[in-house]
Amino acid sequence: MFTTKVKVYFYDADPAGIIFYASLFKYVHAAYEDLMRSFHTERDYFFDKEYILPIIHAEADYVRPIRVGDELRIDVIVSLLKDSSFEISYKFYKDDGTFTAIAKTVHVCVLKEQFKKIELPKECYDMLKTNLA
Amino acid sequence: MFTTKVKVYFYDADPAGIIFYASLFKYVHAAYEDLMRSFHTERDYFFDKEYILPIIHAEADYVRPIRVGDELRIDVIVSLLKDSSFEISYKFYKDDGTFTAIAKTVHVCVLKEQFKKIELPKECYDMLKTNLA
Amino acid sequence: MFTTKVKVYFYDADPAGIIFYASLFKYVHAAYEDLMRSFHTERDYFFDKEYILPIIHAEADYVRPIRVGDELRIDVIVSLLKDSSFEISYKFYKDDGTFTAIAKTVHVCVLKEQFKKIELPKECYDMLKTNLA
Amino acid sequence: MFTTKVKVYFYDADPAGIIFYASLFKYVHAAYEDLMRSFHTERDYFFDKEYILPIIHAEADYVRPIRVGDELRIDVIVSLLKDSSFEISYKFYKDDGTFTAIAKTVHVCVLKEQFKKIELPKECYDMLKTNLA
Repeated sequence: MFTTKVKVYFYDADPAGIIFYASLFKYVHAAYEDLMRSFHTERDYFFDKEYILPIIHAEADYVRPIRVGDELRIDVIVSLLKDSSFEISYKFYKDDGTFTAIAKTVHVCVLKEQFKKIELPKECYDMLKTNLA
Repeated sequence: MFTTKVKVYFYDADPAGIIFYASLFKYVHAAYEDLMRSFHTERDYFFDKEYILPIIHAEADYVRPIRVGDELRIDVIVSLLKDSSFEISYKFYKDDGTFTAIAKTVHVCVLKEQFKKIELPKECYDMLKTNLA
Repeated sequence: MFTTKVKVYFYDADPAGIIFYASLFKYVHAAYEDLMRSFHTERDYFFDKEYILPIIHAEADYVRPIRVGDELRIDVIVSLLKDSSFEISYKFYKDDGTFTAIAKTVHVCVLKEQFKKIELPKECYDMLKTNLA
Repeated sequence: MFTTKVKVYFYDADPAGIIFYASLFKYVHAAYEDLMRSFHTERDYFFDKEYILPIIHAEADYVRPIRVGDELRIDVIVSLLKDSSFEISYKFYKDDGTFTAIAKTVHVCVLKEQFKKIELPKECYDMLKTNLA
């Protein structure tokens, strides 16, 4: 399991004083990027390939309100790995261990230019497999 | 059914040239605000009440890429109405009618201060009921 | 002078109940895109060129608080036009004519790949000149 | 001098591949929050007071493009301290020490409810003074 952290700043909260629900999806993507980068030393993994991994489904359940100043731990796993797509799951915890939210993203592998679905390249599949739960 | 519009700007797109997936959830909330405001003439519906309607679940399916410059039509319905919670559904279409995305948000009614679940006040329930599909 | 509009949504406001200061810079860019698009019928002006027009300076003065639900009119002019760069000015007004904010962006023309400064292509220079005040 | 860090994620970049100019102002505010929090142990400094410190002026100069994956060091100083207002300056550097951007924010002290200018409370003035350069 891969773990990363995020800090909640003022701009991600809304006039109700809690984080705006869409901000969680930014943290989710930051965690996804941290996971992908953990597989690599070179920084430009996302930009040098002829394929991209766009999100075709996303969902989140908000269990407890998240507030400005919170530091969140995010546990990340590959929860499903198929030939052309995969699902990542994210669990959010506060400093004191309180479970606050859960999210999922489903990614599909497409050719960058044509946006045509292809099989996950072996290097990508194998990388993701190391975090499959 | 309630319909509203959104225009896709540069800042909602990412280096892959399509909108960042979390930006869709901003459009979703804009559509929700437009719906809520359509019930009211006074502007401060969201701020004057002793209750708020936070989102406890959100999900989206991305069917076709959305790009900078697109103007999207969003069809909004109340798809589920319960005593303390409700679900809103959003369908996104391009100018030419192409279906591009679908999303849902589930809202629960809580007291603003204590964040304690309560029944939807009658005025709110009745408002939402007019758009129930 | 070019004029456009923007609507203030929940997600651009912060826990103090007014818009987060950086959100104004998003509205500024939306107004800039609307201006650029007013010169063109084809949608992909920003993406098809070998040059881009990145912002090298930005500033804003916040005169009166802007709140969720406000609809703002933005007056846009080209306030300075030089060989390789230009400045755009933006004035924000509420529905009732109240002046709320002013902003400026300075853009420089660079080759997309090398990020090397070049003279503004004639078509771009001439376009901008039509809004020079 | 106070120093903090920020990591550049995908969602802060735009289709030109560099960070969207308004994203810098988010990093600026994160650095400001980190500074303010460095004065305090309790987390809710921003929310418990009868006064707030809204930004009335902001500006930035973008010296070199910032890209996804960059980790930036931000040097923060109080560059001006007056009776009711103050200015903070932020300098951004890449890992390798390259200077990439500079920004300033001017804050004024106002009563939360009435938005009326008041003198900086002594505790706030004294805090800021410790970082005055």
